[in-house]
Amino acid sequence: MDERKVLTNHVLRLTQTLMQAGVKSVVISPGSRSTPLAYAFAANEHIQTFMQVDERSAGYFALGLAKATGNPVVLLCTSGTAASNYHPAVTEAYYARIPLIVMTADRPHELRGVGAPQAIDQLNMYGKHVKFSVDLPLAEDNDELDTFLERHTQRAVAIAMTKPIGPIHLNIPLREPLLIDFDRPAPPITFMERIVGENELSLPMKGQLNNLIANAKKGLLIVGEMPIHFDKKAFWHFAKSLQWPVLCDPLSNLRSEVPTDCLHLCIAHYDALLKSEHFADIAVPDTVIRFGPQPVSKPLSLFLKKTKPTVYVVFDESPEFRDSLGVVTHHVQASAHALFTAVDQLQRTEYAKLWATANQEAEQCTRHYEGTLGDEGIIVKCLLDNLPTGSDLISSSSMPIRDLDTFFCATEKELMVFANRGANGIDGVVSTALGIERARKRPTFLLIGDLAFLHDVNGLIVSRFHETSITIVILNNDGGGIFSYLPQASEPNHFEELFGTPPGLTFEHIGAMYDAQYASVHTKEEFVQEIQKDKVKPIRIIEVFTSRPVNVQNHRAYWADVVERVKTIG
Amino acid sequence: MDERKVLTNHVLRLTQTLMQAGVKSVVISPGSRSTPLAYAFAANEHIQTFMQVDERSAGYFALGLAKATGNPVVLLCTSGTAASNYHPAVTEAYYARIPLIVMTADRPHELRGVGAPQAIDQLNMYGKHVKFSVDLPLAEDNDELDTFLERHTQRAVAIAMTKPIGPIHLNIPLREPLLIDFDRPAPPITFMERIVGENELSLPMKGQLNNLIANAKKGLLIVGEMPIHFDKKAFWHFAKSLQWPVLCDPLSNLRSEVPTDCLHLCIAHYDALLKSEHFADIAVPDTVIRFGPQPVSKPLSLFLKKTKPTVYVVFDESPEFRDSLGVVTHHVQASAHALFTAVDQLQRTEYAKLWATANQEAEQCTRHYEGTLGDEGIIVKCLLDNLPTGSDLISSSSMPIRDLDTFFCATEKELMVFANRGANGIDGVVSTALGIERARKRPTFLLIGDLAFLHDVNGLIVSRFHETSITIVILNNDGGGIFSYLPQASEPNHFEELFGTPPGLTFEHIGAMYDAQYASVHTKEEFVQEIQKDKVKPIRIIEVFTSRPVNVQNHRAYWADVVERVKTIG
Repeated sequence: MDERKVLTNHVLRLTQTLMQAGVKSVVISPGSRSTPLAYAFAANEHIQTFMQVDERSAGYFALGLAKATGNPVVLLCTSGTAASNYHPAVTEAYYARIPLIVMTADRPHELRGVGAPQAIDQLNMYGKHVKFSVDLPLAEDNDELDTFLERHTQRAVAIAMTKPIGPIHLNIPLREPLLIDFDRPAPPITFMERIVGENELSLPMKGQLNNLIANAKKGLLIVGEMPIHFDKKAFWHFAKSLQWPVLCDPLSNLRSEVPTDCLHLCIAHYDALLKSEHFADIAVPDTVIRFGPQPVSKPLSLFLKKTKPTVYVVFDESPEFRDSLGVVTHHVQASAHALFTAVDQLQRTEYAKLWATANQEAEQCTRHYEGTLGDEGIIVKCLLDNLPTGSDLISSSSMPIRDLDTFFCATEKELMVFANRGANGIDGVVSTALGIERARKRPTFLLIGDLAFLHDVNGLIVSRFHETSITIVILNNDGGGIFSYLPQASEPNHFEELFGTPPGLTFEHIGAMYDAQYASVHTKEEFVQEIQKDKVKPIRIIEVFTSRPVNVQNHRAYWADVVERVKTIG
Repeated sequence: MDERKVLTNHVLRLTQTLMQAGVKSVVISPGSRSTPLAYAFAANEHIQTFMQVDERSAGYFALGLAKATGNPVVLLCTSGTAASNYHPAVTEAYYARIPLIVMTADRPHELRGVGAPQAIDQLNMYGKHVKFSVDLPLAEDNDELDTFLERHTQRAVAIAMTKPIGPIHLNIPLREPLLIDFDRPAPPITFMERIVGENELSLPMKGQLNNLIANAKKGLLIVGEMPIHFDKKAFWHFAKSLQWPVLCDPLSNLRSEVPTDCLHLCIAHYDALLKSEHFADIAVPDTVIRFGPQPVSKPLSLFLKKTKPTVYVVFDESPEFRDSLGVVTHHVQASAHALFTAVDQLQRTEYAKLWATANQEAEQCTRHYEGTLGDEGIIVKCLLDNLPTGSDLISSSSMPIRDLDTFFCATEKELMVFANRGANGIDGVVSTALGIERARKRPTFLLIGDLAFLHDVNGLIVSRFHETSITIVILNNDGGGIFSYLPQASEPNHFEELFGTPPGLTFEHIGAMYDAQYASVHTKEEFVQEIQKDKVKPIRIIEVFTSRPVNVQNHRAYWADVVERVKTIG
């Protein structure tokens, strides 16, 4: 068989197998060495192709697609530093448990380690930040190799999709000439199907968990970020039968679509409440069950670390369970769903009422919160009030996710909230949001600070090649807002130089560059007016000018208010 | 001793030792975990601090500083994906042999692998793309640890600076509280000095090399990219005594400041000449000596691969010598300088005259090259003509470096040319240029395509925190120009979608955002007018709108012209 046919079969076999393994989209960055694979993907009508010339942003865009769908998403780039640019998104995917299939084209063996252009050592180049890495063979006219290639690619995707889910890396050497034969049909695939058995909790395990729960006097449920297919109905059914208060992180997505008969269980304001020493003293639980990672709230972490509940059960699909506080007493290596069917008891306690009452007080503070000029909390509150039901909200790390935690009251609205909390970076946020939007095609809002927006401003490039629809709310406080809450804020030496880092930029020009609907606002009234306007362009940017010092001051006042309101409770 | 004192001593000891080891500058990206080290650097008046909020750009800015000075440069960031963002610059530094000292702040052991926020596995995270990686100990009141820390940091920098030079990684766990005591003086350092012996070639080796040279009838010198401290005078002295033609890559920097009595040896146009089959046939060398990596020219590579010189000596300080063509016959693990003193013979041959005559013909084509509207070659030629002596030119990879190769005629002007050719990426180019400018403070020009400029547009952020002075010439052909020269260009299916990728952007808005002196030009006349205007702002952008198809057409015509002119030579 001639070279071109062999190469064509090789790359078509790869893309066919990936399709069979559940891949529905690929994000490609242009390059020479990856040419045959790019063609094979573009020719596959069952796999949607996205283009992004900045590989760092491409990585996060793919991460957004995978996060929003739960499906494995392929990244494809050429050899060299292109592959290094994927490392940030790969890292986030590993810790956030997102199935990225990273495909890096490479030189064949005779061009490795010999100073060939654009040739770097790509083997295992993401180290421990991928679950699996393999250097595939070159195209060959060889049946044994073909069956290996099919099955090994299936294995690789299966490893990615096995809990804890995570990224894998396929390094793919390709030899020139790099063109394929477009008229050639895909070769037949011999591997038919992968069937995965369900893991269930055994009867003795169920008994043990029922005992733990039956013995609880002050039981608390804590829910961190949940994956896209988390069954909220099953959860509320379980929580309702248990009648334990539910401390739910904004990324649990349990604060929206709360069933009316569960509203009293949905505790959205624990972050502010646990700043009250009085309340923290009377709210100590004896038993805690946590699903997902530790929530973003620092007061909750400090509370758990101090009170050390007698029983603290964590459901985590990874043996490397998440317990940075060192307080977990039981680790159940299973999904949250495993518990919902295992337990059925009704417990109505004073303890739940205590939390419900305190939460109502805090909710009042939030509902009456007015902020002042330059405040970010009030903007976040107005944004939440104005989100239409059925929309998606992506939050940057650092301050936006914390403000969301504070101002997001339980609601019957249907909203989905996303953030990159695997490694909590402020990088790649614009791309992640655009990926989520392309996967879900719902009204999409991004809440982001000026530095995070600037960091991934290249995320917007994707809008030049694909349909896009997003509203971006930039909280521009000219620098790093979170540092004002850290101890160094009280140290005048070098603070603005090393931490404030005010770039003095506005994003009106970026708006013009990407033909966005741009508005610059200062007050909450202006903000509400803007957010209620019709969105008439693919990208809408609302840049809100805020103040770091005002922000700190208002947040502290709000927290003091909550503490004051709950001081006589219980 | 209290915690704060111990931490202060620890970080001051680190920064003092780095200073002693030759570090003169640090590029910091703001973060929390790295706070004590950021303070220690800011407090050290002998180390210059640069800030850049995008860690990817920070990496390349540091690379520019190190490339331009030859000194080790420190990169400092917080834990998490911040560190992953350094990977592209680290990769380039490894292959381009640049001494980056990458310092990543990390969580202490009790917060690793337990799901703590912003904690990723940072140990050996750059894999084989650093020469050395170490996880340093936490601060402790312990004399033995202090002496270890000093000496081990010295060792690490020494490894970076040993040829082949390259990046190293220090992972630095820091425990809260993260503030240091500003009034504390740096602790005394006990390690005094590192003394490095010179490696010389032994007498028998010198004899062997002299024999090889004496036997040559058609000897050729090839010079690729040379490091900043390359002694051009010593080289020309050597070349003059040998009277061999010198095929010099633009990055050898041998095309500028050419001594008058060596002009006939400086062959700038081998790329075009070797496209002539006739000339390639009569110009076959029997002996080649190469310094530095293989030049960018593809015709030269094909020529060497085809002709397989009987003797092909490569001077390379690395045992992993660069020979992607598989034609090198002798590998001398030593610097180029080692040869200059080892050889002293005079050879004046017909072979040198052949090259000189052909080169003059090609130079005439270049000098008379007019281009047409939309052509990039003519812009590069006009740029070179208008560069003031004493300026620095940074070229992007992909097409700009190739155009430079074609249109850069030997000159007596003093110019320095730089590019990132370790891994030939188009990423980080803006940052590299700004780093080079800050290190050398000479008139600085960046030649770059639209995609490469867009990729590292965040490189400009550094101009918000530091003095900057640069002229950026953007060749905007709306997409990936190099693909038009590759085989896929003749394949209409998916070409623009996968390779052309026209983003349809102009950079006037970026100019406005960063308060640049911006001009948009279309013709060579407009370009010359602009480049001759006074530069009145820190950043000057000249955006030249060009055409990918016109470009290919003109380049082919130029090459045909050269081939025609040399067809009767010899």
